[in-house]
Amino acid sequence: MTDPVSRRAALIGAAATTLLPLAADRAHAAAPQIGRQAPGYYRYMIGGYELTAILDGVRPTKLDTSPARNASLAEVQKVLAASFLPTDHVGIYFHPTLVNTGKQLVLIDSGNGPRGLPSTGLTAATLTAAGVDPKTIDVVVISHFHGDHISGLRTADEALAFPNAEIKVPAKEWAYWMDDGEMNRAPEARKPAFQNVRRIFGSIAGKVTRYEWNTEVAPGITAIDTHGHSPGHTSFVVASGAGKVMIQADATAGFAPLFVTNPDWHAGGDMDGPQAVISRRKLYDMLAAERMLLSGYHFPFPSLGYVEKAGTGYRLVPVSWSPVL
Amino acid sequence: MTDPVSRRAALIGAAATTLLPLAADRAHAAAPQIGRQAPGYYRYMIGGYELTAILDGVRPTKLDTSPARNASLAEVQKVLAASFLPTDHVGIYFHPTLVNTGKQLVLIDSGNGPRGLPSTGLTAATLTAAGVDPKTIDVVVISHFHGDHISGLRTADEALAFPNAEIKVPAKEWAYWMDDGEMNRAPEARKPAFQNVRRIFGSIAGKVTRYEWNTEVAPGITAIDTHGHSPGHTSFVVASGAGKVMIQADATAGFAPLFVTNPDWHAGGDMDGPQAVISRRKLYDMLAAERMLLSGYHFPFPSLGYVEKAGTGYRLVPVSWSPVL
Repeated sequence: MTDPVSRRAALIGAAATTLLPLAADRAHAAAPQIGRQAPGYYRYMIGGYELTAILDGVRPTKLDTSPARNASLAEVQKVLAASFLPTDHVGIYFHPTLVNTGKQLVLIDSGNGPRGLPSTGLTAATLTAAGVDPKTIDVVVISHFHGDHISGLRTADEALAFPNAEIKVPAKEWAYWMDDGEMNRAPEARKPAFQNVRRIFGSIAGKVTRYEWNTEVAPGITAIDTHGHSPGHTSFVVASGAGKVMIQADATAGFAPLFVTNPDWHAGGDMDGPQAVISRRKLYDMLAAERMLLSGYHFPFPSLGYVEKAGTGYRLVPVSWSPVL
Repeated sequence: MTDPVSRRAALIGAAATTLLPLAADRAHAAAPQIGRQAPGYYRYMIGGYELTAILDGVRPTKLDTSPARNASLAEVQKVLAASFLPTDHVGIYFHPTLVNTGKQLVLIDSGNGPRGLPSTGLTAATLTAAGVDPKTIDVVVISHFHGDHISGLRTADEALAFPNAEIKVPAKEWAYWMDDGEMNRAPEARKPAFQNVRRIFGSIAGKVTRYEWNTEVAPGITAIDTHGHSPGHTSFVVASGAGKVMIQADATAGFAPLFVTNPDWHAGGDMDGPQAVISRRKLYDMLAAERMLLSGYHFPFPSLGYVEKAGTGYRLVPVSWSPVL
């Protein structure tokens, strides 16, 4: 059309609409930009189970120093540039996973909670956007006790964010973090993490279920020993029918494109760097051999891909987004 | 908690909730699965422009025969397997792009419209999910006249889907498809496409604006000659401030992981295969040299990545999802 008159309607969801006076030749209202990303969730089927990767948010981190304890900033920046990524900062993603078995709603990890950056702690909001009421979660399974995995168990007023859920934690992780001797012996920098564990679990200690490795934490969800990132760090195989996915949690910590490619680098969060490397390589060798789907807590949204061996490390091949289930 | 009583609320948006009788020790309602993917849109900034990749849907295509005219099915399946993709079918994505310049809403291509599969023709619905009323679109720019790019201009009752938008089309594309001589000389298999062009444009021929290559179709949006896929096939550079993205349309047609990796293969839709290869290689050599962001109409959602030279072809490096703009 050569002379349209734009009768711009309000953008859906926008608070206000600006209508400019009609110009002589053509009338266009200013187009308010929306400024919000699409909701960060992604559904996929594993056999008869419906899984949802839930984006808790992203934490931008400036690269003034190397994020790897045993690699230089220059080495890190070289990998970033090769991946068409900015070299002055990285964005760390956080992804709890919801498993709907058809009988139970099982949430694996809980996100950063309300005390972090505004760009994180979005798990409950993302669940709601995905059509799931947090009150309907039956079980929350925790992989390890770092704050970005457990702090989402509490709301801003310290209530339980998933009030009807049983909470299951790795027995070895509990033994370490709840031990006052370990807390007293720990380096100062780690003490806030010990205190956070007490804030989250202290008042419900008698109600928290502790699980062992190589047992099912829910039907079809098996806990796997991947310690090193933390003393009781756990990954999970979710299996249904012929389907299988590894929910690795932080078997690779930090920014995935760096540490999957260079599995021998120690991310800042790896409490026992050499042991984390051993667990990571064992896990990835198995995943590459079996061509098993992998979800990484800190991988770019939607957290899912396949690892293949490449050079001395691995390459992460992201899944293709499926618009249908 | 060791003995939670699940007071499951209805899943938000689910039509029905099944409540099971309370069991003696623990009560869990069945968890209705939701069965829908997250809405398929993705926002990103290019300078001061807010762009949105809009998923029109996906068309699953069985691989009984090779989707490349000059490659065998076995060769194609080898590439798919190497990419951790199924080898018995491919899913073809469709992505119009919305550009919000702050003053105008410009939609590039319009999707499959209401006459295709139920899994396609979702552009208007996806725009709405993204908070944009189709009535507010100021300009629709068309890259070429294949049905999956123009049929979304019409609703099921043949009204204009973007009633307040100026429609802009490549002059060379118009000259070819609107020529009855070309239609009469065309192979039978192509005649429905000619008829579809007449259905879409026939009654509004006097109102459709025809544009030339190397001109701006809207402020900051320049039309680029990439003919071969069709006689007037056009790509677009969207530039604002220091930002730049190539909206390539079908410079690579068919399933991207196949034809980006093997740019010399001729997709079924390439009307002039050898010329399409020339345009594609010229475009990708430039993009690889400039490290310019690329949106491919048929790339996996969210359509965005970078091409780098790899072997005799190119590798597509998908962008990392940004939860913030």
